[in-house]
Amino acid sequence: MQFAEVIGTVVATRKEESLSGIKLLVLKAVDVDRRPLGTYVVAADAVGAGRGELVLYATGSSSRLTDVTQDRPVDAVVMAIIDSVEVDGEFLYEK
Amino acid sequence: MQFAEVIGTVVATRKEESLSGIKLLVLKAVDVDRRPLGTYVVAADAVGAGRGELVLYATGSSSRLTDVTQDRPVDAVVMAIIDSVEVDGEFLYEK
Amino acid sequence: MQFAEVIGTVVATRKEESLSGIKLLVLKAVDVDRRPLGTYVVAADAVGAGRGELVLYATGSSSRLTDVTQDRPVDAVVMAIIDSVEVDGEFLYEK
Amino acid sequence: MQFAEVIGTVVATRKEESLSGIKLLVLKAVDVDRRPLGTYVVAADAVGAGRGELVLYATGSSSRLTDVTQDRPVDAVVMAIIDSVEVDGEFLYEK
Amino acid sequence: MQFAEVIGTVVATRKEESLSGIKLLVLKAVDVDRRPLGTYVVAADAVGAGRGELVLYATGSSSRLTDVTQDRPVDAVVMAIIDSVEVDGEFLYEK
Repeated sequence: MQFAEVIGTVVATRKEESLSGIKLLVLKAVDVDRRPLGTYVVAADAVGAGRGELVLYATGSSSRLTDVTQDRPVDAVVMAIIDSVEVDGEFLYEK
Repeated sequence: MQFAEVIGTVVATRKEESLSGIKLLVLKAVDVDRRPLGTYVVAADAVGAGRGELVLYATGSSSRLTDVTQDRPVDAVVMAIIDSVEVDGEFLYEK
Repeated sequence: MQFAEVIGTVVATRKEESLSGIKLLVLKAVDVDRRPLGTYVVAADAVGAGRGELVLYATGSSSRLTDVTQDRPVDAVVMAIIDSVEVDGEFLYEK
Repeated sequence: MQFAEVIGTVVATRKEESLSGIKLLVLKAVDVDRRPLGTYVVAADAVGAGRGELVLYATGSSSRLTDVTQDRPVDAVVMAIIDSVEVDGEFLYEK
Repeated sequence: MQFAEVIGTVVATRKEESLSGIKLLVLKAVDVDRRPLGTYVVAADAVGAGRGELVLYATGSSSRLTDVTQDRPVDAVVMAIIDSVEVDGEFLYEK
């Protein structure tokens, strides 16, 4: 999984039918110390993440293993909202 | 998923039989602000996307989870035509 | 899928048994305008592609969704030989 | 698989339900000679790895083929703790 | 598939149980002309490859489609030992 910050949303009315009702989030990928990596991903939201939150997203076939994304054509999913990141005994992030 | 602009099509008569009838689109990958990323992808069209449209495409096994691509040897699919992209309260794109 | 040119072949007699009879092609990855990308891939041949031909190849699990590659340990397959590539109303390539 | 060093943990209480009880490790990807590659991954822990240990992690659908990650939406898993790495007859690493 | 040279082995006693008996090889990724690409991969050995041999490895779910890796949490497998590589009518490599 990778770290990312939720920065926005995508609206699409013409889409594969099975995607109805799935919220599409714009993610800014960040490093362990929350430094932007310069890349963006659009991911399905499986956990009700809001703008500005630090999240984890999974890619590939694992994106389909949440209740809301099962059997849907999505290749990235936000599957956790981060409370804290601890590295070498220090909290790099606390919500 | 990633952002892309539809810029063309590929025609191939000699191909795996199961690909018959699938439209192959040339996509120019773009960033959240529609800046070209310098990479191109050929994707199956699951939503009737036309040239110039901003779309989302999914890669990997999820490419096969649309009605038109099921069980086909494709690794990228256009699964949504974007209406709007909203980032930090601003619309970066509106159709 | 990505564009590539067939530039050669690989012969391997000691290999996973299920690969017997599968032709392994050396592909030079190219861009939409046929400029070399500097990377090479070895792919199974599902369509009888010959040296010099511009092809499409798929990667990942989709590589196994052709008649010749089903259930084989291959992660790239040539699934189409390109007749033409049209971008912005111009033919960038015609066979 | 890739080499990595365990450097920390991620805590997330709001997450896909099936992730309950899975420990999420922050990994620093390293090269064969343990030089940092500059990238980080969050992976599920399938082997009880502790901070500072050199491990192997697998990505993609294979991440779900351990007892603790089966059918979970994770795309990276620590599946082995390394005892030694031997290259060209020399031990580059011994625990 | 990608070209690689077998340069070593990894020993790990604490690992996912299903990995018992699988030999883990350190691979140095190389180009079609055997130039090192600067990256390393650890792959399961499905063909009895020895140090110094030029091999092909597959990644992703296809890594699990050999007799020795079936249903195991591995994301890379050596599935062929190369006898020869022929490009543009010339042998770039012969064993």
